[in-house]
Amino acid sequence: MTLIDGRAISKAILEGVTAGVAELRAAGTTPALAIVVPTDDEATAWYVRSIVRAAERVGIEARRIDLHGTTAVELVTELAALSADPAVHGIICQTPLPKGITLDQVGQHIAPAKDVDGANPESLGRLAAGLPAFAPATAQAVVEILQREQTPLEGADVVVVGRSNVVGKPAALLLLAENATVTICHSRTRDLAAHTRQGDVLVAAVGRARMLGAEHVKPGAVVIDVGTNPTPDGGLVGDVDTEAVEPVAGAITPVPGGVGPVTTALLLRNVVTAARG
Amino acid sequence: MTLIDGRAISKAILEGVTAGVAELRAAGTTPALAIVVPTDDEATAWYVRSIVRAAERVGIEARRIDLHGTTAVELVTELAALSADPAVHGIICQTPLPKGITLDQVGQHIAPAKDVDGANPESLGRLAAGLPAFAPATAQAVVEILQREQTPLEGADVVVVGRSNVVGKPAALLLLAENATVTICHSRTRDLAAHTRQGDVLVAAVGRARMLGAEHVKPGAVVIDVGTNPTPDGGLVGDVDTEAVEPVAGAITPVPGGVGPVTTALLLRNVVTAARG
Repeated sequence: MTLIDGRAISKAILEGVTAGVAELRAAGTTPALAIVVPTDDEATAWYVRSIVRAAERVGIEARRIDLHGTTAVELVTELAALSADPAVHGIICQTPLPKGITLDQVGQHIAPAKDVDGANPESLGRLAAGLPAFAPATAQAVVEILQREQTPLEGADVVVVGRSNVVGKPAALLLLAENATVTICHSRTRDLAAHTRQGDVLVAAVGRARMLGAEHVKPGAVVIDVGTNPTPDGGLVGDVDTEAVEPVAGAITPVPGGVGPVTTALLLRNVVTAARG
Repeated sequence: MTLIDGRAISKAILEGVTAGVAELRAAGTTPALAIVVPTDDEATAWYVRSIVRAAERVGIEARRIDLHGTTAVELVTELAALSADPAVHGIICQTPLPKGITLDQVGQHIAPAKDVDGANPESLGRLAAGLPAFAPATAQAVVEILQREQTPLEGADVVVVGRSNVVGKPAALLLLAENATVTICHSRTRDLAAHTRQGDVLVAAVGRARMLGAEHVKPGAVVIDVGTNPTPDGGLVGDVDTEAVEPVAGAITPVPGGVGPVTTALLLRNVVTAARG
């Protein structure tokens, strides 16, 4: 069983990002990421700090826009202004959002060219249609990890558990584009284990702590655990019961240290891509 | 085995469409569909005539715009003009397209509010995100037929064969929204029959005459045949070998007389929806 090292993959991606930033700066462009934070949620604040640190380390300017207690109108106005600002190359909007507004509604006000975390439904559509677009970084991370681990995807049976707009659906579309046969399971799926045991690759994106156990995994399968569920003691666990699955799986991403660091690296890579125009 | 009567379903839908058109006309709006035809292909001409006839029968104005031999620029200019024309409520663009231009590129110039056959990638994205949008009428027809046949979709295993932007992918997204567990197969799928035999519902959208036989069908399954493959004698056959499958399937849509008429009816229903604004 291989424990996939997300931090090492992240480091390798960030080397390329650092080089890309240096090139842009030499040509007079400082790549800039705007992070809109419409909440004072503690976990969000922690995540934003980690993105800002990672951005600064590679030379990307991270502009944090605090909009705690904002209204929907104010939020949308800010996103439109950032979309029009030539000094901003990438825009992300953190959740949770103010009451009465959804991420899809917000996403529509992020220009697709700056939509580095694929929040605009137009980005999802372009992705589905096979046109150039930014996918949500987490969904990208799933495919990037599989490619770097040289997991065969062409003709492989891939099972995605979860159908969110930010992970499950875009991951399924990206894996389909890699010529995998893709099954999408979710809360209404009957006999989940019978489905997930068919997967040469199993992607867990449910958001329920340790929901998938040994009985859900085909022997030798590659398991990508997208879950980041907080534990009472302040830690983080995935959607997969890693200890139980280890004897069965061929490889698995740990939580933390798996999909998370790769996601951050890809977000920054997307900013460089956006800044290149 | 039930042979699903697509013409009867179409008729039932068109009764609602006719009533909707009457309401709109009484309020002073004549719903209008623009059909852009950038080809002199014979099969296309036949299909366009059938849409025009069906539209006129329910009181929808069908405006045929012949652009045979057009350039990409001229085509896009026309679509933009129609998108801006308040007298036009729905726009479709027929294939085949002039060389060097794809349906996705064309689709981007059809305003989403008038995109009654879901050709704009933004429509596909909105669909994926669960936002209001027009799906391609053929994909809608798949779900409409299943609902009218009272086929249980919640938790059902649905297998879609084909991953085109106009049928396979949008049908998969619509079926996922109906809480089905959806598997998308395609040309690179290994052991296709092993996958398709899992389907309580099997959607064939491959575009290869009689490609799916008895060995591909789970006993009792509902089979929706989206294929319309021309035969040498001027007829039409589906992607399913209907005669072979009949003893196995629970129900099947014939070709012709299955998905086709329902698609046309839904296209016209979409025009009414668009005209209501």
